[in-house]
Formats: sequence, structure tokens, C-alpha cells
Amino acid sequence: MKQPVRVAVTGAAGQICYSLLFRIASGGMLGNDQPVILQLLEITPALKVLEAVKMELNDCAFPLLHDVVCTDDASVAFKGADYGLMVGAKPRGPGMERADLLKDNGKIFSTLGKVINDVANPDMKICVVGNPANTNAYILMKNAPNLNPRNITALTRLDHNRAVYQLSEKTNSSMSDIKRMTIWGNHSTTQVPDISHTTIAGDAAIDKVDTSWANEEFIPKVAKRGAEVIGARGSSSAASAANGIIDHMRSWVLGTNEGDWVSMAVHSDGSYGIEEGLIYSYPVTCKNGDWTIVTGLDNSDFIVNKMKESEKELQEERDTCSDLFA
Amino acid sequence: MKQPVRVAVTGAAGQICYSLLFRIASGGMLGNDQPVILQLLEITPALKVLEAVKMELNDCAFPLLHDVVCTDDASVAFKGADYGLMVGAKPRGPGMERADLLKDNGKIFSTLGKVINDVANPDMKICVVGNPANTNAYILMKNAPNLNPRNITALTRLDHNRAVYQLSEKTNSSMSDIKRMTIWGNHSTTQVPDISHTTIAGDAAIDKVDTSWANEEFIPKVAKRGAEVIGARGSSSAASAANGIIDHMRSWVLGTNEGDWVSMAVHSDGSYGIEEGLIYSYPVTCKNGDWTIVTGLDNSDFIVNKMKESEKELQEERDTCSDLFA
Repeated sequence: MKQPVRVAVTGAAGQICYSLLFRIASGGMLGNDQPVILQLLEITPALKVLEAVKMELNDCAFPLLHDVVCTDDASVAFKGADYGLMVGAKPRGPGMERADLLKDNGKIFSTLGKVINDVANPDMKICVVGNPANTNAYILMKNAPNLNPRNITALTRLDHNRAVYQLSEKTNSSMSDIKRMTIWGNHSTTQVPDISHTTIAGDAAIDKVDTSWANEEFIPKVAKRGAEVIGARGSSSAASAANGIIDHMRSWVLGTNEGDWVSMAVHSDGSYGIEEGLIYSYPVTCKNGDWTIVTGLDNSDFIVNKMKESEKELQEERDTCSDLFA
Repeated sequence: MKQPVRVAVTGAAGQICYSLLFRIASGGMLGNDQPVILQLLEITPALKVLEAVKMELNDCAFPLLHDVVCTDDASVAFKGADYGLMVGAKPRGPGMERADLLKDNGKIFSTLGKVINDVANPDMKICVVGNPANTNAYILMKNAPNLNPRNITALTRLDHNRAVYQLSEKTNSSMSDIKRMTIWGNHSTTQVPDISHTTIAGDAAIDKVDTSWANEEFIPKVAKRGAEVIGARGSSSAASAANGIIDHMRSWVLGTNEGDWVSMAVHSDGSYGIEEGLIYSYPVTCKNGDWTIVTGLDNSDFIVNKMKESEKELQEERDTCSDLFA
């Protein structure tokens, strides 16, 4: 049996984590041979609920779950952490401007970044989920210079999975036959779900749908799916978000399937003309715990323009918070 | 790849199922090579929430999930079903007597039994979760004569897992080192968590704790753990109950580990002097999709008396509902 790894999770008493933690502890994220120690962070008023989550985790008798730590102290939660799932963020309140939301969450992630820089395993792999996820990841990165910037990522796998579903529904095909879906850009409504390079049972997806559907229906449908789920469910996606996190980390750590890729928001190296250093969603392949951006894809002017719009939004979000990484 | 199997689930829009369905669809219950079709039953007012659950299931792009059916018609939900997870039940309302609860749920399970008898796969494997689980399973069995009574079981695996945790906590040992835990009887406060035959890393558990702890603290702690979780969480166990269902079905279908056993409430064959035909929790081993009661265990008078008390409760519950299987 392998040595246990430490998985730090923020926002741990919330709905996403109520789905997420049990799947991690059952081996769904890091494999059936990888013991884990869960290090759970919450704000002080949520600690009582978090203790109840811990009771239920214990009541599962998971063979892989070696310990559960509950704390409101980030330096305890991230101590020696090998993985960091940054689920917690301040939600947008009534009458709140987007810039205020950016700044409030920016402060949270700059503080967390500094703590992580001091106490975590310097090779810690991070997935930021709390919104605005890409910019929160950027701010965290800028405040944690000891970490490898390649290890600070943001979640677009939920968007990726939603895109796979929409295409399967449209073409009446099996989701397992759909490969090489791509989400470009920011995890926001400017994201660019792109089927230009996608295959369905080996055939080009673009030959099976109208261009007008791909450009005018598919893209907004995927980008606004979160709002659609809220409308139906009365609260935001939780189990599907948790599943996106599981898939993101599993692909990163255990590798992508041969001939396929996944979408992850990662530290841009300038590929496809996107500003270097932004946390931007690309198609990536993963092997041996590292990701590689898929290069050489030929994009239409339509897609390129949308990719640049999403880049511009990320630049603006960053500039709104520039005091947090002076 | 295997042919998909049909998994019918009742109470599908509730909290337990919000944890359960995603773990089934990810392969956690029946294995990573077994595609599934989820056939989800709810009462009519809950169908809108159930549709939102389906949206999120689709948004996970699970390769093993071939279809999701949402319905308020039991004959649709159980049509050709290979597995049945009976999670839904009427909860006890304010001022409601236990006998009324028994009768109300008895009616639900007698109706379901008749439908299942007509439309399900006759080899369907059933796990009843909704309380009173053992008696609901008994009533279902009596109304579904086409089914093999060995395939109608009730959940005591959550109690089993809770017992493993309590023993590990008491002895400061790893849960994966604890084998041969037993829950006897009814899934109620008369249940008998029993460490008489349990081992910890190969050593007898009873040599590591006081008899007074095992008899006076451990048993009520496990039996009343559900109430303790409600107190801490503000609502009843959901994710840990879902995990118990996953473990119950996984052990039954994929087998128990060599040298270990699990607890399942199954059709009594008279073993240990318990009335034949009652749905009673025993230690069982599983192989090739079938269970076998562990026989020949030598029980103390203390345990035997408690086992008989739990049997008596089950007999009384049955007699309260005898009009439902005349």
C-alpha cells in the first residue's frame, strides 16, 4: 500500500464538498490504492456542520481514509498538503458588483496563497473551483512563489463534461464515443466550448451538426448550463461540480486516455497567442502527473475571436485585483 | 464491455440518492466495467427536482451511464429492473405513532411488491433502505412471490460500518485492520452490534476492550448513531447511508473479501434460532452474487438474549401489518 497523501479542501462543509469528500475517500479521485488524509478548512461558524461531515465520513469505514482534520486555520489545513481543492469562495450577494466580488475573493485567495507558500508541500497540485476560478488561481499563484506555477490550475472540466453531454444529446450518440472536446478560456460566460476538433466514434463532430448550432446554440447552452441547473434545482450544481473536480484531478494525476484530451485552466505558455502567465483553459493531455497543452490545432476566425474575448476578460479581472500581487 | 443493467431507485430526488446516484453512475457500486441504466422513481411533486438531478447526472458525462429514466409510475421504474434500491419511505411525522408509520410504509411496500412482481426481472436483487427497513422488505417479499426471497434484503451495512468506526476509535486502530464485525437483528435501536468474533489485525477484539464497554457503551452508541448525526448535522445521514448501500450491493454482487464477512438483513433460514422467513441481519459472506449466513458462531447469553429481543420486535412489526400479506 502507498503512503497516505494529504488532500486539503476548502469550503468543506458546503454542498459541493458533501458530494466530493466521500468520492475522494472511496478512492474515486486518486485511485483504489492511494490512502488519503483529508484536511478540511471552513470558516468558524461552519465548523459544527463540518464535524457532522466528519462523523459521516468515519461512519463509512473507508479503508483508504487514514484521517480527517477539521479546522478554521488555513495553516493547519494546508500543512504538508500534497493536493489542494479550493472549493470555498464568497458568493455574489444581492446588489454586489462583479468588481466587488472579484476583490473580496481576491483577498481570500491572496491570503490562502501566502499560507500555502509557507506550509504546503512545494509540489502541491491545486485545483481552484471557487469563482472567479481562473483569476482566483492567478492571485493564489502570485502569492505563492515557492509553488510551481504549473501546479496551480482552475476547473473547467464541469464545462467540458457539460459540452460532451450537449453534443451527445444533439447527435444521439454515446458520451463514451465523444473524444477531444475543448473548452477555451475563462470559466465564465465568455468560455469557448469548441467542437472543431471533436470526434464522435472517430468521425468529425462538425460533419454531424450545423455550424449555426455549434456557434449559436451549443456555446451559450454550455456556458449558461449552470444557471439552467439553478433554475431547475433551486440551488447551484453540487454533485456534478464535485464530479468535475474528481475528473480534473484524476486525469491530471492518473493520466488522460490515449487519443483523447481534457480541458483544464492552466498557466498559459503563450500557446495560441494567449498572454503568457494567465490561467487559461486549454485542451491538455496528462501523463506522469503533468499536463501538456495540445498544440497545433487550427482554429477558425470565429473561435479565435471568442478565445481573444475570453482572454480580454481574464486580463480585466486580473487588473481589477492588481493590488493583491504587487 | 458488459451489457447495461437496470438499476431502479425509489425516493430518487431525496438527499440519500443525491449522494448515491452519482456513485452508482461512476461505477462505484457494480464495478468499472458495468454500464448502468438508472430508473428513478419519485412521487409526482418531486419530479421537477428529479429532473434537475438528471441534468446533473448528464453533466458528469459518465461513460458507464447509458440512460436515466425519471418517472412517478412504479411500473415504468421497475420494468425489467435487475437491481432495486428502495430508499423512499414515508418519514415519521409529528404526533405519529410507530404503528401508524409501520402501516403507512407497509402499504407503500405492499404496492411496490405487487408491481415489482409483475414487471421486474425475477432475479432482481433488492436492498430496502426506507424504514422500518426489515419489515418493509418482509412485506415486499410477501407481495412479490415471483421473486426469489433470497434476493430481498434490507440495509444494516451502515450500522456495520458505524460499528467498525467505533471500535477503531476505541482501540486506536486502523479501520482496514478490523474484520468480522457483526450486526444482528433489526435495523432499529434493538439491533445487536457484536464484536465477539471481531478481529483487529488478526487479534481478538474482545481482548482489547472491557466487556462493559462492549455491552454498555458500544452497542447503544452504534444503535443511536443516526440520532447523533441528526443532532450534529440538522438532518439525517445521507452520504454515509448512500455509502452503506454502495457497500451492501458491491459486497453482494462482487463478493466479500477472503477471511472477512459483512452484515446484511436477509431471509432467515432459522440460523441461530431466529424464526425462519424473517428479514434478519446476520453476518454473511458473498460469492458469485449470492450470500451465505456465517454459521457456527458461539454467542454469549447476553448476545443471544439481545438477538431474541430484536427478533421479537420484528415479529411484532410484522404482526402489526399482517393485513398486507394475507
